[in-house]
Amino acid sequence: MSSENFHGVFPYLVSPVDSEGRVKHEVLARLVEHLIDKGVHGLAPLGSTGEFAYLSFEQRIEIVKTVVAAARGRVPVIAGVAALTTRDARIQAETMQALGVQGILAIMESYFSVDDVGTESYFRAIAEAVTLPVVLYTNPQFQRSDLSIPVIRRLAEVDNIAYIKDASTNTGRLLSVLNQTEGKLQIFSASAHIPAAVMLIGGVGWMAGPACLIPEQSVRLYDLAVQQRWADVVALQRELWRVNEVFARYSLAACIKAGLTLQGFDVGDPIAPQPVLSDEALTQVRSVLQRVGAL
Amino acid sequence: MSSENFHGVFPYLVSPVDSEGRVKHEVLARLVEHLIDKGVHGLAPLGSTGEFAYLSFEQRIEIVKTVVAAARGRVPVIAGVAALTTRDARIQAETMQALGVQGILAIMESYFSVDDVGTESYFRAIAEAVTLPVVLYTNPQFQRSDLSIPVIRRLAEVDNIAYIKDASTNTGRLLSVLNQTEGKLQIFSASAHIPAAVMLIGGVGWMAGPACLIPEQSVRLYDLAVQQRWADVVALQRELWRVNEVFARYSLAACIKAGLTLQGFDVGDPIAPQPVLSDEALTQVRSVLQRVGAL
Amino acid sequence: MSSENFHGVFPYLVSPVDSEGRVKHEVLARLVEHLIDKGVHGLAPLGSTGEFAYLSFEQRIEIVKTVVAAARGRVPVIAGVAALTTRDARIQAETMQALGVQGILAIMESYFSVDDVGTESYFRAIAEAVTLPVVLYTNPQFQRSDLSIPVIRRLAEVDNIAYIKDASTNTGRLLSVLNQTEGKLQIFSASAHIPAAVMLIGGVGWMAGPACLIPEQSVRLYDLAVQQRWADVVALQRELWRVNEVFARYSLAACIKAGLTLQGFDVGDPIAPQPVLSDEALTQVRSVLQRVGAL
Amino acid sequence: MSSENFHGVFPYLVSPVDSEGRVKHEVLARLVEHLIDKGVHGLAPLGSTGEFAYLSFEQRIEIVKTVVAAARGRVPVIAGVAALTTRDARIQAETMQALGVQGILAIMESYFSVDDVGTESYFRAIAEAVTLPVVLYTNPQFQRSDLSIPVIRRLAEVDNIAYIKDASTNTGRLLSVLNQTEGKLQIFSASAHIPAAVMLIGGVGWMAGPACLIPEQSVRLYDLAVQQRWADVVALQRELWRVNEVFARYSLAACIKAGLTLQGFDVGDPIAPQPVLSDEALTQVRSVLQRVGAL
Repeated sequence: MSSENFHGVFPYLVSPVDSEGRVKHEVLARLVEHLIDKGVHGLAPLGSTGEFAYLSFEQRIEIVKTVVAAARGRVPVIAGVAALTTRDARIQAETMQALGVQGILAIMESYFSVDDVGTESYFRAIAEAVTLPVVLYTNPQFQRSDLSIPVIRRLAEVDNIAYIKDASTNTGRLLSVLNQTEGKLQIFSASAHIPAAVMLIGGVGWMAGPACLIPEQSVRLYDLAVQQRWADVVALQRELWRVNEVFARYSLAACIKAGLTLQGFDVGDPIAPQPVLSDEALTQVRSVLQRVGAL
Repeated sequence: MSSENFHGVFPYLVSPVDSEGRVKHEVLARLVEHLIDKGVHGLAPLGSTGEFAYLSFEQRIEIVKTVVAAARGRVPVIAGVAALTTRDARIQAETMQALGVQGILAIMESYFSVDDVGTESYFRAIAEAVTLPVVLYTNPQFQRSDLSIPVIRRLAEVDNIAYIKDASTNTGRLLSVLNQTEGKLQIFSASAHIPAAVMLIGGVGWMAGPACLIPEQSVRLYDLAVQQRWADVVALQRELWRVNEVFARYSLAACIKAGLTLQGFDVGDPIAPQPVLSDEALTQVRSVLQRVGAL
Repeated sequence: MSSENFHGVFPYLVSPVDSEGRVKHEVLARLVEHLIDKGVHGLAPLGSTGEFAYLSFEQRIEIVKTVVAAARGRVPVIAGVAALTTRDARIQAETMQALGVQGILAIMESYFSVDDVGTESYFRAIAEAVTLPVVLYTNPQFQRSDLSIPVIRRLAEVDNIAYIKDASTNTGRLLSVLNQTEGKLQIFSASAHIPAAVMLIGGVGWMAGPACLIPEQSVRLYDLAVQQRWADVVALQRELWRVNEVFARYSLAACIKAGLTLQGFDVGDPIAPQPVLSDEALTQVRSVLQRVGAL
Repeated sequence: MSSENFHGVFPYLVSPVDSEGRVKHEVLARLVEHLIDKGVHGLAPLGSTGEFAYLSFEQRIEIVKTVVAAARGRVPVIAGVAALTTRDARIQAETMQALGVQGILAIMESYFSVDDVGTESYFRAIAEAVTLPVVLYTNPQFQRSDLSIPVIRRLAEVDNIAYIKDASTNTGRLLSVLNQTEGKLQIFSASAHIPAAVMLIGGVGWMAGPACLIPEQSVRLYDLAVQQRWADVVALQRELWRVNEVFARYSLAACIKAGLTLQGFDVGDPIAPQPVLSDEALTQVRSVLQRVGAL
């Protein structure tokens, strides 16, 4: 396993936590085992789907410990680092490296908006705090301050900033990043983009919540894309996209947790006060998972 | 020329108008001749790039007359119909059909927001006013009220509503439209999407302002996509995307008009009070056109 | 009647138009008579409530002609001028002056966004086209490009730009305008502000759709404010605010038209494809009008 | 000091923290002493101005301890409770009550959006966790999910939810809250509203960052409003509003921290990566403070 060459399907892991805030280690470990068994290329705890914003630092540590232990080095683990202050981000990044992860997904939260100078300094601080490869996370929908293309270009010069994962719905933005950083940043798709389209323009894989539920199908899609069998890619992509369509209608974390529960993983509800899935939504989740052979 | 089978590259024509509001017929006719000469598959006057919102009904009629006359039936002309009221839309559509166009691009403007029922009734009224094929136009960025997927699905049942052109930046939305309308609607890309990606998932072409400036390159890209030479498609797409990147930074109409002026078409400025391009922007437009061999 | 000293309650008149686009002159004239009879200080045709965006130039001319004729010089008429191009705005303004109105409400529509230079030039062009006093209209919610405080300050230097009517919900913005233009601009409230609060900080009145339905109550509120009987002002304001609350929940034009119909003015429906009021909304309009003694 | 009757001027305290994250207790205690000396009616640590989102639970505890100790029961302390999860909010609220504060300012943060049911349950959980009076905080600009009027009306039925502080710029919303909760909720203004206008319609005071810098002037404004000397209120309000105008242009926390530093309180910079104030902004802060006699 080379940490220098992340590629393929990285499911965003959910964070199974009970109503008292206790991490459900057993179910998380079992989910990791299942996903590796299905062929995923890596694991991404503490992304949006992982409800990072709702977890304490202690909970995050516990989750990553369990994932690293369960993965047993078979696939790389890229852990989310998400904070409002530069200081917290640095501490989190150092801690995650110490816990034995293979990469850092760097996320900036904000309350007041932050200018380009502040944004750049935040991500640089994370990269400097670790020797691991860093994946930039950008999402104009959820983050109040976001990475502009000029800042991305400057950050691409930092040695261990090697990847970017864009969670906007704007696929053209990815092509611009490729154009502007000329080979310095590798690109991962998110569930808001069509993975097939991102692979076509030069992406190396995707990090996404739905891959928790359809790992086998996702790996097949990836393999077809690597083989450049584009007609087959599109046929499968169009079918799998129905999963993204359902999830885009409702809260992503709630959908993935509900779907995993249907698959026999007792991951529990989204952390309150986030609503649990309505019956109507649950019916749609069940139906689409059956349709794509994931239930 | 079959009006039943629109496909390929449709440049959104600019609307050359002098400061007194007079349409510059000669330059518009010369631009049409030039584009047909370069191999475009059709022409789309009165889109966003055509500044439809800034033109009176009389000016719109004059522009379409000139385009139809200059095209001489060699390629289909799809004219924009854009209004705030259902009544105006119906009158415009009937008029455009009488002027001899081959298709209607149906656009809904709004001031107060309109619900799904009102939106559906607006587009139905246009389709019923003509026998021509209708292309739905959807753009959540510029239109205050927009077509939801359920409304698109219902409108796809209307006989002569046969195409959709989505100007959001959300490429996944196009795949959802394909999934939800199952073969009833053909999809055109816009300049906000990557044409190569839209062709990959099943699109039939694109309607876009930049194609006014790079018609030859656009047609080459289309031909490669039809031949499914995807590696070549992506190499060319990545180069041409630089044009879209520059245009996304500034006002689209101003960029296309400035670029055409550089190419020797005296189309004039955007209609006031829209600003003319800054010197810095003009330098970027010139530079990118030179880079892709369009100057 | 001095056109130099606008103040008090200016109802935004609705635009009664039948499904064929014909202006219903008789009902409009009767509404004007009724409002003057109830003591309003002026009339404002072709504002947002007047659905200006949905009317042709010809319809606008007809409406203003009828209002001016019915007013017979008893109260000033301030007509809306709203366009996307500077040229159209100038022509509209000249026409309105020729029709005998006493003032112009200057509104800028936009499709592509316009910078400060373009915005300033647009409003200057209107002011230069007439000798009448001009009221600036600003509404960040409905207009894509809006007047910034620095532009307002510069426009306040223009001789016949003497008033501003802000339709944002941000009352503090009005105090900033007062501070920044130091006596050069008089301020009118809109239905999105609390008229009592705007009068307190130095406003001269309000232009608002609801005043069509509660003219008598509005004039009473204005008189109490002029007399600085603030406890009485607040008691009445709080009661009348219930009308604004209902209208803020639904489409303003639809509510006013529905309310006037209940009061016996057959003004018809909002112009299609705008939806007519739902039964639930209509019940709320009826109920609040009964509560404040307007039905 | 009755905790049952909050009213008057409550400065939102800044949170002085050094670059290592250590709370600067001495300067915070000195600021508290200064503000009480100037006559403020209460103190509000851990609001937006207090950068609550950038502080760990430990830092929040330290800050509140220092404020409570420095206040010595002379004025009520209302501490902010802000969390993403219901569980954290409950723990924070219990802790703040144990630290001896007189009231809780309840703030809901969010990442994914939360529906009305979830929002209501969050605020109820805080109220149930304490016996202290609770102030609801609502701010559609900074919070992704916000309190709707129907939820506010239901929460007003809870015994110890007695106040609301709305930080939108929409003053009419406050009048709607008063109308809809009929005497059950008392209203505090925020710096985004004109305090004079809020007092006019029935408010009981304001919680705002600027009051840290102009405590004496704020108390004078409050006294004039209580005496219903409205002409004097408006004259002073208009002058003091210049402070809000400057602060609205830049980051609020950065402005207040910079202004306090100018006044001799070494509160340090905003917490990184938030930018420090530019020289131009600092000049404006200095100038406006001099103008209103606060420097």
